[in-house]
This record gives sequence, structure tokens and C-alpha cells, in this order.
Amino acid sequence: MPRGDKLLAFSEAGLRRYGMLAGEQVEVISGGPFDRPTPTGEVRRLSELKLLAPVQPSKAVCVGLNYRDHAAEMKADLPGSPLLFLKPSTAVIGPDEEIVYPPSSQQVDYESELAVVIGKPCRAVSEADVPGYILGLTCANDVTARDLQRSDGQWTRAKSFDTFLPLGPYIATGLEGDDLAITGRLNGRVVQSSRTSRMIFGIPRLISFISQVMTLLPGDVILTGTPPGVGPMRPGDVIEVEIEGIGLLRNRLKA
Amino acid sequence: MPRGDKLLAFSEAGLRRYGMLAGEQVEVISGGPFDRPTPTGEVRRLSELKLLAPVQPSKAVCVGLNYRDHAAEMKADLPGSPLLFLKPSTAVIGPDEEIVYPPSSQQVDYESELAVVIGKPCRAVSEADVPGYILGLTCANDVTARDLQRSDGQWTRAKSFDTFLPLGPYIATGLEGDDLAITGRLNGRVVQSSRTSRMIFGIPRLISFISQVMTLLPGDVILTGTPPGVGPMRPGDVIEVEIEGIGLLRNRLKA
Repeated sequence: MPRGDKLLAFSEAGLRRYGMLAGEQVEVISGGPFDRPTPTGEVRRLSELKLLAPVQPSKAVCVGLNYRDHAAEMKADLPGSPLLFLKPSTAVIGPDEEIVYPPSSQQVDYESELAVVIGKPCRAVSEADVPGYILGLTCANDVTARDLQRSDGQWTRAKSFDTFLPLGPYIATGLEGDDLAITGRLNGRVVQSSRTSRMIFGIPRLISFISQVMTLLPGDVILTGTPPGVGPMRPGDVIEVEIEGIGLLRNRLKA
Repeated sequence: MPRGDKLLAFSEAGLRRYGMLAGEQVEVISGGPFDRPTPTGEVRRLSELKLLAPVQPSKAVCVGLNYRDHAAEMKADLPGSPLLFLKPSTAVIGPDEEIVYPPSSQQVDYESELAVVIGKPCRAVSEADVPGYILGLTCANDVTARDLQRSDGQWTRAKSFDTFLPLGPYIATGLEGDDLAITGRLNGRVVQSSRTSRMIFGIPRLISFISQVMTLLPGDVILTGTPPGVGPMRPGDVIEVEIEGIGLLRNRLKA
């Protein structure tokens, strides 16, 4: 995948197809996100496409408490090493798809996050080698049933509901992830505003660390933690995650 | 899949193939575990086959502290509802494959468990409907880096290392899972001995509960918790999980 492109996935005639963003247009490519992009010559208007999550991960590996000021707002100690949890592939939705409020929760929170998309099988890699395993970066929302997170102690149930992992809209390739503005907006109002430079553990450290535990596969996503300002959503609310150089991921919450 | 069969997977000429156990023989079938088994007419000797994990799950959903006496030995409170965590697909290994001791841990424990294999997409099902979504039962070892489980608080890293989910050797179909003898043996010595009737939450409750959170896909496995007697393994140790009516899952630990 060339550097500096924005890759997207869309649905057309029941098929999953891929394209590269070119202004308001999308150049349709053959193959998938891990192939060399070959233009088919077909062009679509972005505004007319039904976008999908740009990847279909086998797993999403997430990092808790990776911004100092978010750890403080959660009244949690700073972790000495990255604190991992998993979200299942069944939680993934795409841009403009609806997050579904589960009946078992009374508090569903947004968490705006930078996500790293893995490009090649990755096992026990050094920090220096990490960049060669990254396909690109995208926006993610680590939706969390905060009440169940607290009552369970273990975070898995609270974070694994179907629709609790919006991803997209684009995978930006060739973008340095170490100092990007990240913004969360609830119904248009800024509720999270930070920079990825404020992470405790940066991308090379996170991916090297995770790859010492489990093999990462192409399409797997690493969620790098959320900055402060997390809070609850109500049915009908619109939540946006915007990251500099990537794009804006918008989803509505439904009952 | 007819009731009362034992389905297995094996590797032959680089391919993943399936068969049905028939005494010391294996009748090779066409298709996979979710198709109606059609005999190819080929027969193999079980002792000559390289068995694989009988399914390739998209996720393994695990339940913590589901036997009263194991909760007691862990000095943990009994959960009021099933306590969930995930193991990634990359942790799966098959019978006789080696569990690899990670350098970051000083204590790697076995946990013998009954695993349920899902047969059909399963979302928000009632307890009464659960049996229709089950393909069968198999043996699992929820290998755990106990020291990392304690120090992280969240259990994900400790349970997600590559090779930390041995599965197999067979998927037993048509077997009631509610009162089976389950035995763990370390180097031939019995270290866990219980019955699945001692679970706090039975299979219908577990799968109904999990399916309210996340969609279960064909091949996904539910690990139903471990009975008391968990303990550490050392490199070179052989650990066996045997469940009545299913079979014996044996793995060696290597440094």
C-alpha cells in the first residue's frame, strides 16, 4: 500500500469492495487492503457510497489507561506496562452504522481512540521493526458499558457487545501516529480533545509488547487507549471520533 | 452432524481434513464440521494421524470462577452472573502440540475445562433454545500465566499467549454436558477431578447469557470454567485433560 493514501471499504450489490479516496471521489481498486492497489478504472462519488469498516479484524487488542489524564479521571493507577483487553470481531461496525444500547446496561460511554491496522503477520517484533508491520491508522470508538465494567471487574463483557467497535472511515497509510490531534464530539459538542503524543506507551512499544504475547494477523487492530473526557451517551445521540490526517467516524446510538 | 459421533480434524499433505472416529480407525469425510458428514470411503488409522484442533474458532469466550471450590481456592467471591473473558484464535493449538512457556511469566498453570462448540450463528437465544445451537463438546486447557493474571488485574494478557488454548481431540456430538467426569493429570498424576454438574452456571445459562452480549459464530468455543486443583507446570511436563464421553487432550510444555 503506497504511503499517504486513504483506503476505504464499501458495499455494492452485496459485495465488499475497496477504494482509494481522491477528493470527493473514490477510485475503486481490485483486491483487498493487503494487496497492491490496482485501479479498476471505476470511480464512485464518496457521498453515494455505503461505507463499511475498512478492515475485518480477527481480533481487536485494546490498551487500557494509556493517557495519564484519563487514568486520573477513572481514579486508576498508572499501569507499569500496557494493560490489555480484547474486543471480539463481532463487535465491529462501520461508519454511520448504529451502536445498539444493550438492555443490560444503564450507562454506555464513548471512548475516542486511534487504531493501528496490522498489515503483516506479526510475532515478537522489536520496537524498531514495528513500522514495517503497520498497514495504516484509523479511528475507533471503544464503546463501553461503564456500569458493567465496574460491576464485573473484568472488562470483557462491558466492551464486547455487538456494535461496540465502530471503525473507520479510512485507513490512512504512511501517517506518523505519534502526534495527531484526536477529538470526540457528542451531538456536535467537543467532549474529548487531546493529542496522541500524550499516550503513556507509544505505538512501537504497544505493538512490540502485544506481539510478545499473541501473533497479530493482517487486519487485526490495536486500539491505543482513550484520552480524558469519556462520558455517557443516550439513545439518539450522535458520537464522532475525528483524528487529524485520517478522517471522521460518526455513529448514532439507538435503543 | 448426527448425534453420538466423534468428529476430528487432521493434517494430510498440508491440508486440513475431517473424519469420524470409528474405533481405532477414522472415516474421512468431505466438507467440514458444519456440513452433513459425507464419507469419502477413505479410512485412516487413528494412531498414524497428526490431529489438529477440531475447530478453528473466531473467538473463545471463557467463564471465570464457575466451580464453587475453584473460586474458593482462588480466594475469589462467587460471581452473581457469569464472569467473561476472551482468548484469541491465535492461542489455539491441537492435541499433542506443545504449549510454549512465555519468558515474561514465572508461573504457567493448567486449567482443565469442558468446551462447547457452537454450530450455528447464535444471538440472544433463550436457555431453552441453546441446545439447537451446539455442535458438540470438546476438551480444553485454559492455560494461564498466573503471575501476570495477578499483577495485571485484567486477565487477558495472562490467558492470551500463543499456544495457551489446547483444544480437542474430538468434538463429541449428542452428548449431554451437565454431568460428565472431568479429570486433569500432570505427568500422569490426577490433579483435578470433578464433575460438570458442579458448575455454578450450566451450559444453557452460559450460552444464553453470552449470546445476549455477543453473536457467537459456528466454530466459536465456550470454555465453561475449571474445577479446583489448578497448579503450575514446568517445561517438559505433560498435562492431560480427560472428559467422560469425549476423550483425552494431551500437551507437553516446552521452555
